[in-house]
Amino acid sequence: MAPTGSAHVAGAARPPEIPRDPDDDLPVRVEEALQAYLERRRAGAAEIDPAFGEATGALAAFVLGGGKRIRPTFAWWGWRGAGGDPAGETAPAVLRAISALELIQACALVHDDLMDASATRRGRPTVHVEFAEQHAAAGWNGPPARFGAAAAILLGDLALAWADDMLRAAGLPAAAAVRAAVPWEAMRTEVLGGQYLDVLVQATGDASTRAALQIDRYKTAAYTVERPLHLGAAIADASPALVAAYRRFGADIGVAFQLRDDLLGVFGDPEVTGKPAGDDLREGKRTLLVALALARAAERGASAALQTLTAALGDHDLDAGAVDRVRDVLVELGAVQAVEQRIAALTGSALDALSTADVAEPAASRLAELAVTATRRRS
Amino acid sequence: MAPTGSAHVAGAARPPEIPRDPDDDLPVRVEEALQAYLERRRAGAAEIDPAFGEATGALAAFVLGGGKRIRPTFAWWGWRGAGGDPAGETAPAVLRAISALELIQACALVHDDLMDASATRRGRPTVHVEFAEQHAAAGWNGPPARFGAAAAILLGDLALAWADDMLRAAGLPAAAAVRAAVPWEAMRTEVLGGQYLDVLVQATGDASTRAALQIDRYKTAAYTVERPLHLGAAIADASPALVAAYRRFGADIGVAFQLRDDLLGVFGDPEVTGKPAGDDLREGKRTLLVALALARAAERGASAALQTLTAALGDHDLDAGAVDRVRDVLVELGAVQAVEQRIAALTGSALDALSTADVAEPAASRLAELAVTATRRRS
Repeated sequence: MAPTGSAHVAGAARPPEIPRDPDDDLPVRVEEALQAYLERRRAGAAEIDPAFGEATGALAAFVLGGGKRIRPTFAWWGWRGAGGDPAGETAPAVLRAISALELIQACALVHDDLMDASATRRGRPTVHVEFAEQHAAAGWNGPPARFGAAAAILLGDLALAWADDMLRAAGLPAAAAVRAAVPWEAMRTEVLGGQYLDVLVQATGDASTRAALQIDRYKTAAYTVERPLHLGAAIADASPALVAAYRRFGADIGVAFQLRDDLLGVFGDPEVTGKPAGDDLREGKRTLLVALALARAAERGASAALQTLTAALGDHDLDAGAVDRVRDVLVELGAVQAVEQRIAALTGSALDALSTADVAEPAASRLAELAVTATRRRS
Repeated sequence: MAPTGSAHVAGAARPPEIPRDPDDDLPVRVEEALQAYLERRRAGAAEIDPAFGEATGALAAFVLGGGKRIRPTFAWWGWRGAGGDPAGETAPAVLRAISALELIQACALVHDDLMDASATRRGRPTVHVEFAEQHAAAGWNGPPARFGAAAAILLGDLALAWADDMLRAAGLPAAAAVRAAVPWEAMRTEVLGGQYLDVLVQATGDASTRAALQIDRYKTAAYTVERPLHLGAAIADASPALVAAYRRFGADIGVAFQLRDDLLGVFGDPEVTGKPAGDDLREGKRTLLVALALARAAERGASAALQTLTAALGDHDLDAGAVDRVRDVLVELGAVQAVEQRIAALTGSALDALSTADVAEPAASRLAELAVTATRRRS
């Protein structure tokens, strides 16, 4: 065994590095790109004021503290499938550009957690709670919650601004940057539109399947799969036909992904999902699963089932027994089966769109795998 | 007099249009650029969903509903002073690019009003209040304030995203767009840093003049004058010497502008400012004026004055008599005179920086005028 630290001795013998396959470890490489970018911005923020540097350090810790990096992954394979060369000279710039998607996601999560008054994410306090706790521990003036909310609003804004900065500074060729603007513009507006509709539908109580699917389409599908693929394709100067196929694939897989999420939100194993069972019910989420069940119960005049559902939705004190009863009702009404069928149909049409398009390997295979894992996952 | 509508008759004689001097009516031309851009984006949002189209219509009404357009004005004159030709072919693109500053400002105001729980702005309900009222009037589910907060967070985010989109879509020559990114990046981080420090200082109760000046520098000066000038200069490919002079001018005038604001916040005539007298005191703002007064009172052992000040700061029920007593104390302690002297000194050093730089006319004269009006204004 070599003595500790031998690698630091100039000229010392060391094993040659095995070059990584650029397609492997994508989440790790996205995190490296984010870490390098965030460290540079944090240093700049600290020059404005050390306290602002600390706050941006908390944002960086949030961004780097977890997540599946699903959006950059779809963007990468979108680029690869349109002919992007992972060993080519633009590959590092592409990696930086698609990693910027995680900063949009940071804004979405930080602001969402505040709007939903969520206390934890990934087993840690949410950003607004973290800053409120810091305020309370220091015994500062005013309500800690108000300080926490302000910090979360400002740090979410910063993440959104830095997302644009990171894309702009990625070093893409000028023509690629111009093409990338199309999905980038659409995506940010679509996700905010989807979030607004989600909030609006919670307020109005619109229980229609149309509203649920509308939100799935914009808040999840466009933002998570369709536009990231489009972004990768645009950078690679893909043909309009390939962009159209990607978008069809992405829209379908994205909705299927959300429908799987909806099922896991009620039926998932807390040990696997990391979330308490039934939290989607307690939050009163108007998912397609719930919308279908409500429609079927009304059609059949199943007033007891209807009562069980409507009483459970938004009941923050819903206990395990009540969650079980809702599960039974969702199964009995056929809503679970209908959602499973829809997931299967969407996955099928997505794979059709992919197979008829001219997607370069190994991207075609990897996207097909991603489609299946995204819609059959258990967490 | 020509009959009404004659201009619509093909071939009818009509007086030749007098071409507008592009330097004139700058706020109107900024509003035209914003209106055209926002209408296009609103239409796109309505395609996602009519309800989202309506929400973005409320954002557009907010953006177009008032404001002095001070940031685009400084950016325009920064560009003109660096040789930008108002009759040249890039002028319309420059106008669109600098108008995007107003969308950053919309995000800042909408989110600030939410953080401060302000009920009105420009005599109208703030965005979070407008949406809360809509919720209450419709009798929707859940607390109206929560819906209003969510709408304000999402629409502020949208304004920030659209600011970037508008800059990107402005049509600047590629090299100018690359140069513009430098001040654009710095500015957004600086204003968010300044806002965070402002919130933090309210919480910690840091009453130092250093903290007050730090916030003035980043929240106001960099954001309102320094970086807008830098943006215009960067677009025009100004020399480093001119950029440095603009930044010096902007930093000084920007702080002086804020110090004038601080004085108006306590001594302003409500009929002119449109704000109740003493609201800055009720909100407990830690301005340089207040910081100087507190420091002087402590130095002199003026415990009655100190007591008057500390009791007034953050007292939401402060009455007119108490505001008058605070005014007397601020004058007696010499804080008002010190702030006036600092405004005069900053204006002087700013004008020095401008006069020694190579600023093209009429920009040099207009910037000097802006400097004086910004620091001597009554509202």
